[in-house]
Order: sequence, then C-alpha cells, then structure tokens
Amino acid sequence: MSQTDRTVKQTRTRPLRIALLGCGVVGTAVARLLTDNAGDLTARIGCPLEIVGVAVRRPDKNRSETGVDASLFTTDAEELVTRADVVIEVIGGIEPARSLILAAMKHGASVVTANKALLAEDGPRLYQAAQECDVDLYYEASVAGAIPLLRPLRESLVGDDVRRILGIVNGTTNYVLDKMDTTGAGFGDAVEQAQALGYAEADPTADVEGFDAAAKAAILASLAFHTRVGAKDVYREGITDVSAADIRAAREMDCVVKLLAICERIPSSGGGDSKGGGDSKGGGDSKAGNDSAGGISVRVHPAMIPRTHPLAGVREAFNAVFVEAESAGQLMFYGQGAGGDPTASAILGDVVAVARHKVVGGRGPGESTYQELPILSMGQAMTRYHISLDVADRPGVLAQVALAFAEHNVSIETVRQQLLSPDPDSPDEGRASLVVVTHTASDAALSATVDALAALSTVRAVTSVMRVEGE
Amino acid sequence: MSQTDRTVKQTRTRPLRIALLGCGVVGTAVARLLTDNAGDLTARIGCPLEIVGVAVRRPDKNRSETGVDASLFTTDAEELVTRADVVIEVIGGIEPARSLILAAMKHGASVVTANKALLAEDGPRLYQAAQECDVDLYYEASVAGAIPLLRPLRESLVGDDVRRILGIVNGTTNYVLDKMDTTGAGFGDAVEQAQALGYAEADPTADVEGFDAAAKAAILASLAFHTRVGAKDVYREGITDVSAADIRAAREMDCVVKLLAICERIPSSGGGDSKGGGDSKGGGDSKAGNDSAGGISVRVHPAMIPRTHPLAGVREAFNAVFVEAESAGQLMFYGQGAGGDPTASAILGDVVAVARHKVVGGRGPGESTYQELPILSMGQAMTRYHISLDVADRPGVLAQVALAFAEHNVSIETVRQQLLSPDPDSPDEGRASLVVVTHTASDAALSATVDALAALSTVRAVTSVMRVEGE
Repeated sequence: MSQTDRTVKQTRTRPLRIALLGCGVVGTAVARLLTDNAGDLTARIGCPLEIVGVAVRRPDKNRSETGVDASLFTTDAEELVTRADVVIEVIGGIEPARSLILAAMKHGASVVTANKALLAEDGPRLYQAAQECDVDLYYEASVAGAIPLLRPLRESLVGDDVRRILGIVNGTTNYVLDKMDTTGAGFGDAVEQAQALGYAEADPTADVEGFDAAAKAAILASLAFHTRVGAKDVYREGITDVSAADIRAAREMDCVVKLLAICERIPSSGGGDSKGGGDSKGGGDSKAGNDSAGGISVRVHPAMIPRTHPLAGVREAFNAVFVEAESAGQLMFYGQGAGGDPTASAILGDVVAVARHKVVGGRGPGESTYQELPILSMGQAMTRYHISLDVADRPGVLAQVALAFAEHNVSIETVRQQLLSPDPDSPDEGRASLVVVTHTASDAALSATVDALAALSTVRAVTSVMRVEGE
Repeated sequence: MSQTDRTVKQTRTRPLRIALLGCGVVGTAVARLLTDNAGDLTARIGCPLEIVGVAVRRPDKNRSETGVDASLFTTDAEELVTRADVVIEVIGGIEPARSLILAAMKHGASVVTANKALLAEDGPRLYQAAQECDVDLYYEASVAGAIPLLRPLRESLVGDDVRRILGIVNGTTNYVLDKMDTTGAGFGDAVEQAQALGYAEADPTADVEGFDAAAKAAILASLAFHTRVGAKDVYREGITDVSAADIRAAREMDCVVKLLAICERIPSSGGGDSKGGGDSKGGGDSKAGNDSAGGISVRVHPAMIPRTHPLAGVREAFNAVFVEAESAGQLMFYGQGAGGDPTASAILGDVVAVARHKVVGGRGPGESTYQELPILSMGQAMTRYHISLDVADRPGVLAQVALAFAEHNVSIETVRQQLLSPDPDSPDEGRASLVVVTHTASDAALSATVDALAALSTVRAVTSVMRVEGE
C-alpha cells in the first residue's frame, strides 16, 4: 500500500512549548501576537502554544507590551532551547544564533528564523542538521518580510522550472531610489530622508551597499535552482554610486532605477540548456565574450527597468519579487518587506506550520541541492548596458564608438546623439552626448567595451553606465 | 517527547502511480510535463512517478503530444482511480468528477484538482472525505491558475488574520474591461475581440456573468476566514451591464473598472470585532442601514478602483489578488490565471507536495472551519457608490439630492456638477449632470438612496451607478 503509517493522529492537549530568542522590534511583535491570538492559533494548530521563555540580554527591561509574564525573560538562551518544542530565533547575526539553533534542533525542537545573514552564510549546515534531527527549519521571514515567497518558491513552483527572479528585496534602498526618482534628490539627501523616517539605519552600509539584498539573493537562488548558493557567491554592487544624472538618464529612457536581486538560469551558449548540472565552468576563453557555459547568475546591482514593468511601480519601502517560470510564466509577489508586524506575520505562519507537524507528524520538504548548477562569474552574466558618453562633436566619432562595440561583439540596440553646450575650458570644440543602449551580451564584453570607449581620444568622459534589466 | 514517530523514512523505489482524469488543454500540459520533467520530479519528490492511466472520452484520438503511451488511455475512470497513489482531476464540472474523487480517496489516493465549480459547490464534503481517508486534497490550480495563492493563504498567512481580499480572478472579464478602458470599445465589441483571441468562450456566460469568479471567491473566503462558504453564498453581478459611459465615468474619477471578487471581514457595528464567531445575524432592523452585526461579506461585482491601486495596473487577461491582513499589511499576488501550462504548473506543484507526503508520511494541513463567521447579505456589505445623475438645472436640485442621501444616512464624499447641453425634447429646461461619490455605507442604504433619487421629479435619469472599492 502506498499509504504511510502515522502513529500520532490525535490532537494533543499538552501545549507545545515555544521559546523565543530575541525580543527587539520583531520579537516583541511575535510575542504579542502569540499572546493576543492564542485562541485562533490553538484552533489552527490543533493544540495550544505556551511560551516557556524569552531569551534577552537585559531581562529586567519593561516589556509589558509583549503580554509575556516578566518571569519568563531569561539571559540563559542555551538552557532555554533545551526545553522547547519550537524555537523562534530573531536575534540575527551569525553567533550565538547559529549555535543556539543547532542546539535547539539537537534537542528535538523545530526552528523558525528570520536570520537571512546566517542562512546565506551557513544554510546548508543548518538544513542538514534539521534533516538529521528530523525537525523543521522554516525561514519565510528571512526574505521580503511578510510576503509569502519562500513557500511558493519551494512548494508551489516545485513542479515547474524557474528561469529568472528579479527582486526588490531591500526596502531602504527602494525608498532611497524612489525619492531620487520622484523628487530629483541626490543620493545623500535621499538617505538622510530615509534615516529621518526610520527606513534607514544610522549606519546604512548593509542596505545601501547591497549586503542585505545579496544574502536574500543567495536564499532565493538556492531554493529556485536546487543549488547551494551562499552570500559569497553573489556578485554585489550597492547604490552609493547612483547619481541624480543616472536617475535622469533612466527617466529619459522611460525607465526607473531599482536595486535588483537577480537570480537567473543561463543556458549554455549552444542554445541547449545545461540542465541537471555539468562541470563546465568556462567561457573565459571566448574571444567574443558572448559565450556562456550555462549555469546560474546570482547578483545584486542597480539597474534600469522600463516603467511598464510590474516592478517599476513598487514605491517607497515596499518589496516585490518578479518570478519567471517555464510553465507558470510571469508571477509577482508584492508587499511589505520589513517591520515588526509584517515580519511577525511570516514568522507566525511558519510557527503554525511547524507546530502542526509536531501535532500530526511529518516534516516540511527539506532543501534540495540536487541540481548543483555551476554559479557563473559576473563576467558571464548576460545583461544589457545603458552608456552615456560625452564626446567631441567631430566627424567620425560615432563610427569610432560603434567600432569599439563591434570589436567586442556587442550589438547596439539604439544610439541617441545630442549636441551639448561647449566646454568653457575648450570653447572652440563642439561637444555632444551619445547615449547607447546595447543588446544582451556578457557583462565581461560590455565592461571591456566601456574600458575601450573610455580610452578613445574622442570620448571626453563616460558619464553614466548602468545595466538594463526586465525585458 | 513532542517528536512524533514516523515509520516511513526511507526513499521509496517503487514508483508512485499517477492517474490523470481528463486530457483537454490542461490535462495535455500536465501529461507532457510529467513526461518531460520526469527526472527533476523524481529528484524533488524522492521517488519516481509513473502514469498508470489517463481517463478520456475518446481513447483513440491521437494524443502523441502528451508523451504518454497510447495504451494508457482508457474510458474506465472508475477502475483507473482504484489503482493510483495520486489522482489528478482535470475533467471539471460536478459529475462524474465528484464521484471519481471520492472513490479515489476511498482507495487511498491523494487528489489534486483544478475544479473550482466542484469545490465551491461541495468542498466541505470533499475535505471531510480526505480527512477520513487520511489523504491529501490539493487544489491550488482552482483559483488564479499559476499564481501561488491558496498555499500562501492557507499556510503562510495562517498565523495572521485576513481582513480583506480583492481579487481579479477571471481573465476573460479583465481582458474585456481592459479593452473597454483602453480602446473605448463597448461591451459587445470587447467580448467579440476576446472571443477572437481565445480569451472568451463562444458562450461567455460563466465568465461575464461572474459565475467563475463567484466560485473562486467562495474558495478564497473559506480559506481566509476559516468558514464554510459555498458558491450559493456569494453575491454575484457580472459585467454585462457595464457601459462605455461607466468606463468614461471611471476615467473621469481617475479610476478603472474591474470585476472584483471581494472577501471581507466586517466588524460588528459597535466598533468591536465579532471575531471567533457569534450567532448574531441581524442588522435588518436598523433604520439607518449602517449597522452591521459583523461577519463576512463575499461578493463579485464590477467596481471602480483608483488607478493608483496596485490592482488597477493588471492588464489584459492577467489575474491578481490583493490581500490585506492584520499584521502582514497589504500583499499582492500577480500572474497568469489560466491557460494549459500555467494551470499545469500549479497542478504539478501540488502533485510534488502530495507525492512527498506519500513518500515521507504526513498530510498537508486540512481545511479549518472553526470560525464559522456569519455570511452577511449584500445589503449588509459596506461599500461606496459612484452615482451619475442627469438632473434639471433648477435652484434647489442639489439640496433635494443631498437630502435623499441624508435621509438614508449616507454621507457624501464629493459632488461634481456640470451643465449639459439642453435636451432637444424640452429645449427650454437647463440640464446638469451631478456626479456623487459617497462615503462607506451599507449596500442596502446605498441602494435605497438610488431608488429615492430615481423617484425625484428633478432627477431626469440615474445614468450610472457603480460601487467604488480599493481605498
């Protein structure tokens, strides 16, 4: 018979013991929801939950808004995790979070975490530990806060093949870029506005340099491509170099600049798809630079996207993730990517899931890495460039520029030329701006083209270079 | 200990037996994907799948595009379901689909179906049968095709409280309304265009009269509110009465007209929320018509929504569902709602899920109806109206109109008056148009107001009445 035996069917009456590690903004929201919604959660799980402890650094602080009995706050997280059925980790960072999660699983607890940094750094070790301990490790809140995204990727799309993910997964940078777009503000001013409104930290490095988005890209790519991808595998460029001129250039193209987390399946250059793996790593020996051995490209960088693209309308600090799959076609998931309550919503959903498993048996699907696709270098990524040049207005300049593209086998989609007012330092020489948008080519070829353009005597300056995505 | 015993842990080697019922557009896509992606599916499930039969009406038809061995086609669906581990039902309609699904479950098979009509008609009976037979019944494809929506609602948001769902869940009507908006076409012409492109059936009744959307609304409301909601509980108005004038009126308001499936939690009028149930059914004795006993409103009707609303940008035959939850805030899910491949993607995701359960044990979460919230009548729904009137341009008309609203306790948000050219039949009387947008009130009060307006001697005609949602 195909049915499996399941020894535990009855609804249990002894409460499931919940340990909460960390009680900052998210932890406070989680504790409050666990307390306020106890009745509904019991009905949905089939068993009551009982908070058996909350690990914090300062147990004496007034945390009455959590609704948690003051006696349950403790500094001894190591002890707490040994007496829980479900551990919720919202401390963040690598240690002590990792050790606590591993200890909890060893003691038979399922774990719910929002810790993107840890998952991107050491996910495979945690997934394996969960499997060995026969417990769940759920982490929906680690990417795009409240937006149900990981479960859809891992479960709903598991019968399909994901081709590409384009994600706005960092609210801070989206807020900054949105302000730059709508108000014309420069980067520094926009960051100050974001800080004033609480959308950016005092030290915004993790957000504006793309570290946060890169960790999320690693998690998304791992799930989408059944391949181990860590934060170190992700090419990363932040938004600190995005200028008001770049934003204006995007507007002129009817585009908008977004910081995108991109996870992309790149078929091998023969046109066939190296699906199922393969050990080819090459492409480096290609003169044209357009060849690719096939694999996946995982990267975070600012890019222009057309204003007609569904992601272009994602304003303020919202997040959205656009997914293209072989059969499903184009999908988009949109919502709030951060904040106490939205993140707590995702965590509570995971808590209900893992608690149900504790009650009726079974585990959620484990992470699969069976495809182990090669991770391509940034040079092998296939993308398009938007390049603005300040050139001398002389006969033959356009031909020279076009030749530089041709020599690198980069095909030009459009060129727009505009006369500029003369340079005060050399008032006799005419100036023009050239805006070139390319067709898709390898990033290495595009980058080499830009270097060659910069070296041309007729090119006074390369004023803006930006990738174009979303078509 | 809280851990449950699980007797089946090893990866099984005997294939799981798949029976496919129906081989139309969706069934063909499912069969082809099962065949083409066999390797990936085996890796993701931990066990190979084997198609043991495809039930069709005409087994001799050439179906080589499915990749399924011709000998596997059979007309004997009753026999087929007795020898499968997983049954995929894509016949549609009530019978024989229902009997086959029930028989399959009795024989221990888990069932994956895309049958919204059956679920909306008799869902609770099927859910109960699944529970009694200890098998899974999954139906992601029944609402909004490829968009992962039911799993997020049932699992990701299960720790949260859904307040409202606004869904564009019927691609045909969205295509028709989009064409009316963008080209100014009338309803009939737009339907003909949709038919020519294959977006509408030769008999488009099920779509344009809102039956399809109503079935989906019932499924969504059941999951969102843990309450039994059937198609018969859903108030339904189609789009056949939407005129080019309505569309123009919406444009003037910077709105767009969409056919919305709305599932809404309405707190009791005391301001408190009757969460957790209650047996109050009233509201009918209220003079003001603004009182509500609390409960849920589930309805399908055309409505104006602001062009700034995320749903307004959903073009052509795309679907999107906007969800507001207590903690998660606003979420949106967007994608293709129909078509062979997108629907097959959702079905395959479900197949992998239920097959994994067959391999490692456990079942997906069952449907819960513990809240059993009262389902409110359309009169009790809280909404806003946009009303266009053709009135005589005489002193006191506006006062008369305003009085009609006040007498029904409906508060006016804006009034816009515009002089019209005289009626050729009574050229001496001035005419004006009045456009009134109300604040939120019960649909009964709004509807009574419209009746009262129509009876005023100074009102020459009520030219357009449309609900306004999305704010």
